[in-house]
Amino acid sequence: MATMKAAVFVEKNRIVLEDKPIPTVGPLDALIRITTTTLCGTDVHILRGEYPVAKGLTVGHEPVGVIEQLGSQVRGFVEGQRVIAGAITPSGQSYACLCGCASQDGPDTRHGFRATGGWKFGNSIDGCQAEYVLVPDATANLCPIPDGLSDEQVLMCPDIMSTGFSGAERAEVSIGDTVAVFALGPIGLCAVAGARLKGATTIIGVDAVPARMSVARRLGATHVVNFKDGNVVEQIMALTDGRGVDVSIEALGTQGTFESALRVLRPGGRLSSLGVYSSDLRIPLDAFAAGLGDYSIVTTLCPGGKERMRRLMAVVNSGGVDLSPLVTHRFKLDDIEAAYELFAHQQDGVMKVAITP
Amino acid sequence: MATMKAAVFVEKNRIVLEDKPIPTVGPLDALIRITTTTLCGTDVHILRGEYPVAKGLTVGHEPVGVIEQLGSQVRGFVEGQRVIAGAITPSGQSYACLCGCASQDGPDTRHGFRATGGWKFGNSIDGCQAEYVLVPDATANLCPIPDGLSDEQVLMCPDIMSTGFSGAERAEVSIGDTVAVFALGPIGLCAVAGARLKGATTIIGVDAVPARMSVARRLGATHVVNFKDGNVVEQIMALTDGRGVDVSIEALGTQGTFESALRVLRPGGRLSSLGVYSSDLRIPLDAFAAGLGDYSIVTTLCPGGKERMRRLMAVVNSGGVDLSPLVTHRFKLDDIEAAYELFAHQQDGVMKVAITP
Amino acid sequence: MATMKAAVFVEKNRIVLEDKPIPTVGPLDALIRITTTTLCGTDVHILRGEYPVAKGLTVGHEPVGVIEQLGSQVRGFVEGQRVIAGAITPSGQSYACLCGCASQDGPDTRHGFRATGGWKFGNSIDGCQAEYVLVPDATANLCPIPDGLSDEQVLMCPDIMSTGFSGAERAEVSIGDTVAVFALGPIGLCAVAGARLKGATTIIGVDAVPARMSVARRLGATHVVNFKDGNVVEQIMALTDGRGVDVSIEALGTQGTFESALRVLRPGGRLSSLGVYSSDLRIPLDAFAAGLGDYSIVTTLCPGGKERMRRLMAVVNSGGVDLSPLVTHRFKLDDIEAAYELFAHQQDGVMKVAITP
Amino acid sequence: MATMKAAVFVEKNRIVLEDKPIPTVGPLDALIRITTTTLCGTDVHILRGEYPVAKGLTVGHEPVGVIEQLGSQVRGFVEGQRVIAGAITPSGQSYACLCGCASQDGPDTRHGFRATGGWKFGNSIDGCQAEYVLVPDATANLCPIPDGLSDEQVLMCPDIMSTGFSGAERAEVSIGDTVAVFALGPIGLCAVAGARLKGATTIIGVDAVPARMSVARRLGATHVVNFKDGNVVEQIMALTDGRGVDVSIEALGTQGTFESALRVLRPGGRLSSLGVYSSDLRIPLDAFAAGLGDYSIVTTLCPGGKERMRRLMAVVNSGGVDLSPLVTHRFKLDDIEAAYELFAHQQDGVMKVAITP
Repeated sequence: MATMKAAVFVEKNRIVLEDKPIPTVGPLDALIRITTTTLCGTDVHILRGEYPVAKGLTVGHEPVGVIEQLGSQVRGFVEGQRVIAGAITPSGQSYACLCGCASQDGPDTRHGFRATGGWKFGNSIDGCQAEYVLVPDATANLCPIPDGLSDEQVLMCPDIMSTGFSGAERAEVSIGDTVAVFALGPIGLCAVAGARLKGATTIIGVDAVPARMSVARRLGATHVVNFKDGNVVEQIMALTDGRGVDVSIEALGTQGTFESALRVLRPGGRLSSLGVYSSDLRIPLDAFAAGLGDYSIVTTLCPGGKERMRRLMAVVNSGGVDLSPLVTHRFKLDDIEAAYELFAHQQDGVMKVAITP
Repeated sequence: MATMKAAVFVEKNRIVLEDKPIPTVGPLDALIRITTTTLCGTDVHILRGEYPVAKGLTVGHEPVGVIEQLGSQVRGFVEGQRVIAGAITPSGQSYACLCGCASQDGPDTRHGFRATGGWKFGNSIDGCQAEYVLVPDATANLCPIPDGLSDEQVLMCPDIMSTGFSGAERAEVSIGDTVAVFALGPIGLCAVAGARLKGATTIIGVDAVPARMSVARRLGATHVVNFKDGNVVEQIMALTDGRGVDVSIEALGTQGTFESALRVLRPGGRLSSLGVYSSDLRIPLDAFAAGLGDYSIVTTLCPGGKERMRRLMAVVNSGGVDLSPLVTHRFKLDDIEAAYELFAHQQDGVMKVAITP
Repeated sequence: MATMKAAVFVEKNRIVLEDKPIPTVGPLDALIRITTTTLCGTDVHILRGEYPVAKGLTVGHEPVGVIEQLGSQVRGFVEGQRVIAGAITPSGQSYACLCGCASQDGPDTRHGFRATGGWKFGNSIDGCQAEYVLVPDATANLCPIPDGLSDEQVLMCPDIMSTGFSGAERAEVSIGDTVAVFALGPIGLCAVAGARLKGATTIIGVDAVPARMSVARRLGATHVVNFKDGNVVEQIMALTDGRGVDVSIEALGTQGTFESALRVLRPGGRLSSLGVYSSDLRIPLDAFAAGLGDYSIVTTLCPGGKERMRRLMAVVNSGGVDLSPLVTHRFKLDDIEAAYELFAHQQDGVMKVAITP
Repeated sequence: MATMKAAVFVEKNRIVLEDKPIPTVGPLDALIRITTTTLCGTDVHILRGEYPVAKGLTVGHEPVGVIEQLGSQVRGFVEGQRVIAGAITPSGQSYACLCGCASQDGPDTRHGFRATGGWKFGNSIDGCQAEYVLVPDATANLCPIPDGLSDEQVLMCPDIMSTGFSGAERAEVSIGDTVAVFALGPIGLCAVAGARLKGATTIIGVDAVPARMSVARRLGATHVVNFKDGNVVEQIMALTDGRGVDVSIEALGTQGTFESALRVLRPGGRLSSLGVYSSDLRIPLDAFAAGLGDYSIVTTLCPGGKERMRRLMAVVNSGGVDLSPLVTHRFKLDDIEAAYELFAHQQDGVMKVAITP
């Protein structure tokens, strides 16, 4: 049996490069040879045991590669094509998918769907920090890379670009909106770019790391607020002449950012929450106008599927957004443990790493 | 100076019928002679000092009456017409109104709107538990009562019908949805009716008062769950074969109902919050799927304006909803203090009272 | 090789019951034994050669039956289940499906989708006026029939109920709307029911056949206009006090109904077109306000997929709509040519026929 | 009585600068001293007698100026402020406004609104090609110009920027869409800019005038198709690899552009029509897929009101769009007849003219 190298969750604080069998291709699957992948903050949660996955699982959910083998029932592709697949791989055929909530795809019950679906790569099935990955429901999930785009140019499409943009999309950012983005990590930066793409005219980024604040400006932030310079809510209310923002996007997953995001909303404003939380959230009575403020709070799990990937790569291809500044470090798969060490400790100004075979 | 009787907030635990001057009509106003009005749970919060209003304010925000006098700039009405006005009286001309958030209408700043707007009658201006009330921005807010409808038939339109329906509307209830409504007070009952009007096919009401549960069935609930019969979340999950609901509507304003409303949602479900809360809310990490569940939480302040009132009275007129069973008691304005006594203590199975001159 | 009986398009004016092989089940397919099906107006167009299909094709697109055999890759069903499938059978996996336009599902190109998709049964693949039908992409398209519902109760779900409802849905009918439905054939009648389910309070049906006008009233029409009683546009403007309608639904496919549907719109109104046209359409300059009227014109091809079928059967199951009065005649499959004779000539007050083995 | 100069429609082919009384300010009005205005293609239709207005009417609907006097009931402004008002001046208080169709604002009937509303300046009331203009319902319609923006920078906001953007907005252009814009006059150019602001990644402009094609590229067109180079539909289908466009925007008002806009749509695509038509339109059966293509056709009259103006000026202020290249010629009000001569005959590469006192 042929084997491959794969980054495997062994136990808390140990993700190790191991040899595993190359997966067998079922009728609906595609086997992708990975040419570039990356690490995500969620992988660090897995590493630290904060997000539970099965021992022995291959981690990673951001694949760029080449079709090595297609299942017998997969339609519309040929072996050898350069492709990506989204971090979320909806089947397109479940009740969840068919009622417009593809990111929550999962096994159906007779009477509808259950909450067991959603994100699969490196979570419920083997992921892509490996030489090969098996893409389920490949007809719906493979998307060819347009000619002329490099692996690194599309490396953010499977997860952070889709997630960050969805923060702006689900909040229905419209032309002339004022938007605040809380935390300018990779997803927050993509949310800034997404807000600009949807016509926001005032985009306020919040962080304290100069390099991130600088990238935010390049991606479309018109203002950057440093939370070390004083109360963030007051700073934003001052910037907006007391009006508040139409949309705030939370991109960290903490009580502090969530609460600030709520407090800066104008009446009728929308809070779009992208962060993964690790404790209960509190909605202060006054920040919520006791429920009378016509607010919306929406959360979004990274949209996937080939049409989504096609559109995101079209954005890159049109020059609409250039996320290449986010790739600050590059590693070989053989050195992925070192990549985790650097990334988990946020050393050396790392934003995203590129992992190649 | 002509005087009238009016129910006035004097101090905590004292709303008293007093003589006040009949208001003077400005160019944009209309003076309405009240023929029927009612009490709302919010008025009880005011009575108890839980919701602050100015001493000396006339309370009440659900007017049915006759146009006594029109301001010089009011267009489209004639004196003597029977009319209602919504509890919320948007000007139609503020930034809030013009950006689609009329319920948050208020004074504009140069750069947009502030959070000081919204509900006016019996809150920031004198209300309608009186012989007369002054309707601001009357062109936008008066709506003629269709011939053949009685005062009591349209008495719920200004507030609870508009609020309850909006719970279903803002959650975008669609044909075939499963909806749970938490608490079957007047607003929850209207939410049940609204969910049915929008095509929900399974509507689960939650309460423990048999009379309310019975009215819920008449208004469209297909199932009624008694929270005294055991864990509400488990009961609803069992009723839906483990699928959960597409939409849950919170109509009480407590941590318990809010949290249950969140826990019964299917992935991607929408929580529509109508209750007025009196303390911070907690979102449990597990109920929120750590932010990964594609949930929406929306709050809605009672939509007003004459077009809204016209549509709600059209629902009544078409026989779509009959809320007359909610009027359980009737009082003269002279006896309004007794009405408060009954209503505040929820005695004798009271749901809504009708107050007439 | 086992054979079955099937209604086959032989040539113009000849649909004939023939023996054909029972289809072979591929990995993604399901073989359904038909227990009830029906004829559609579109089948009559095929019969008359007005809508081209391949000679030898089995016609029919409204299947009710039992799962006889499941393909190896089909998930979530067991053989022997009673099921329906929609007239449109989206794969869930094409670019069309994944960009929210599942009814236009078809083969993908590298850069997106082409216009070759959409309706398959009895159009591009063999249909269900037969003993058996093969359902493609069965995971996405089979839907179990709730216990207690008869075949005839769900017989309208695959096509006319889905199409008629979508007329109201795509036009975004909302609570309090005034809606006019032009032509009260089976689809128009379902549009009436759909408008009511979405909260319309004035629903005006237009036809001249007393039996249809009577069924329209039972399904929710508040007014019925007989086009033989004079100018339809004038009648509707009079009924609405000169205001016009929020939504008009065209359900016949002629210049006359389309034009009337446009002329009765209030400014900003929505025209939802369901009819299949057989010649160019003309938009009169004055009816269109020269393009300044903020009008929308939307067309809709019958939504399919198992979630859609689940919701429609939930409507039936909840008692929300009873379409059984539409089944006016019953035939055995052996007598399907007689059924066509009756239905094509609209004899004996036929609305829909039920065909059983 | 003080007088002013005003461009008046005298009769067909004669718009003449005349002396008229400066208007008297009613309680709801504001008198604006015009500092810059412009001519619109619609004014040319008026000049030629193709669009009927009353003799003696002052024409023009694109005002930039200073508040000279405020009516007694106008809230939120001070005399001396630099302001603009939209070409459409909704009252905010009619049934049309309150049901979300403010551009169709007009006198109410008891039962709703009539089709007599909409555009007022230079149509049903005196316009702004004059020294002064009276703005009705001024509270809802005046909008202060942000400091630092010149008159010419905001001159396109009242009409063409609002109209052009709305073409993209009403068609719900989303991130990654492919959009075609037919005719690159001032409104088409603004539609290009609007499509880009909403995230379209492929934007195809269609025209034959090199200067317009060049401006289109600066405003966001990724491709420009010259209709003199061959069949436009074939050119666009080739550019999109046979897929067609998600959205087409018609910005001329002719059968040819309308029909091409329809033929290039992918299944389920949206046609946004901005042109003012001067004859009946024909929808070819094949282009319409006989009604089975899930198409939408939407028309939009220029959105107005102060919130709209605020947002458009925010776009200018943020650098999101620079429409200053459209102002190709400048005239004094005294020379407005010469401006009409130039503009009506489209001489000297004129796109828009600026008229100052």
